[in-house]
Amino acid sequence: MRIKHTTIKLKTQAFCQFVDLTDRVQAFIGKAKIRNGHVVIYSKHTTMAIRINERENGFTQDFRDFMLRLFPKQAYYRHNDLSIRTENLVCDPGATDCLNGHSHCAHLLLSTSETVPVIDGKLMLGRWQRVFAIELDVARSREVFLQAIGQ
Amino acid sequence: MRIKHTTIKLKTQAFCQFVDLTDRVQAFIGKAKIRNGHVVIYSKHTTMAIRINERENGFTQDFRDFMLRLFPKQAYYRHNDLSIRTENLVCDPGATDCLNGHSHCAHLLLSTSETVPVIDGKLMLGRWQRVFAIELDVARSREVFLQAIGQ
Amino acid sequence: MRIKHTTIKLKTQAFCQFVDLTDRVQAFIGKAKIRNGHVVIYSKHTTMAIRINERENGFTQDFRDFMLRLFPKQAYYRHNDLSIRTENLVCDPGATDCLNGHSHCAHLLLSTSETVPVIDGKLMLGRWQRVFAIELDVARSREVFLQAIGQ
Repeated sequence: MRIKHTTIKLKTQAFCQFVDLTDRVQAFIGKAKIRNGHVVIYSKHTTMAIRINERENGFTQDFRDFMLRLFPKQAYYRHNDLSIRTENLVCDPGATDCLNGHSHCAHLLLSTSETVPVIDGKLMLGRWQRVFAIELDVARSREVFLQAIGQ
Repeated sequence: MRIKHTTIKLKTQAFCQFVDLTDRVQAFIGKAKIRNGHVVIYSKHTTMAIRINERENGFTQDFRDFMLRLFPKQAYYRHNDLSIRTENLVCDPGATDCLNGHSHCAHLLLSTSETVPVIDGKLMLGRWQRVFAIELDVARSREVFLQAIGQ
Repeated sequence: MRIKHTTIKLKTQAFCQFVDLTDRVQAFIGKAKIRNGHVVIYSKHTTMAIRINERENGFTQDFRDFMLRLFPKQAYYRHNDLSIRTENLVCDPGATDCLNGHSHCAHLLLSTSETVPVIDGKLMLGRWQRVFAIELDVARSREVFLQAIGQ
């Protein structure tokens, strides 16, 4: 039984950008020499999700519009209210990157990770399935952790 | 350490049908002779989810109604707009089964898989927990992949 | 390869209470002597979720308000309609704890479990990531199952 891991570094660009990780995850499985097992694709962030779906640009824009309606960025969030908030107030100087209540709420409806089976050295993906990191905040530097376990 | 897998084939019938997989997953664990470990129940589709919840017909209808309000099938989706879409246009002749924007959006709020611990040869399920495939498109032929890892 | 498990018992207090499990999960990993692998944090309930996000009191209240708007407790749910419901009618005498349609619907949008990688004996958590049980019903006694697999 083998356990291998690596980290993918990303620079994202905008809210609800879908970054296709599929080829990088498959390349990691090849290098890790895992033939049968599974891989956990894991976001190290509370405002970037990992999800599996189809890669089609219209759909990802549809979903962005939906999320912006469900969690308007300009709505009132206690998380963004500096008159009451006391915890975790770590923004860069002059920046407002800790005032992202809509991003945190959106993330709870998506997820931190996906687990994908590996069979004969290949990710078990159906015809349309692709693995995405989904940015839920503004453009940021991000890390995705990959861990494979198997034989 | 053992790793075993199988595939369940389904024919679903309608949007938001909940197909109870629990007994089939438990039977697989028995045959795989996994006593302690976990099983990944994994949808090979971008418009069918795997979720754990209670089996109660009123609730599943409540949830279907909720999802239809959140993602109306007849709303505008770029994914369904043949005047702009260029990718993955693979429908059966005369069919519109690739024009399912509401299904893809709904799937992102549910999930592709669940991981369930196995203890003493049994799925670790609480009193009301059942494992479901949830169809988010029309009636279709579907596959659920099961992978158990353990001792 | 080792597989270890334990159960955490909780008494929750209210809808959308976030119970921070992080320190208890880390303590379990230490006792289990897992250096590399992953841990599944798994709710044994259909109305309590496990999610990873930031611990900040304003945000968790924002999310509670959002969920109450999306799934009003007093809306009509077939799950709560004793004139039509026939399944799983197991309430305590005089209680209405099986009439929680909003809780079940909310749970489907969150999740039953999270899988977190363990590296060098530590949970692979980014700067703001904390592991929570999220109560989606009223105050209740709850169990969270932890299972670690690794070396």
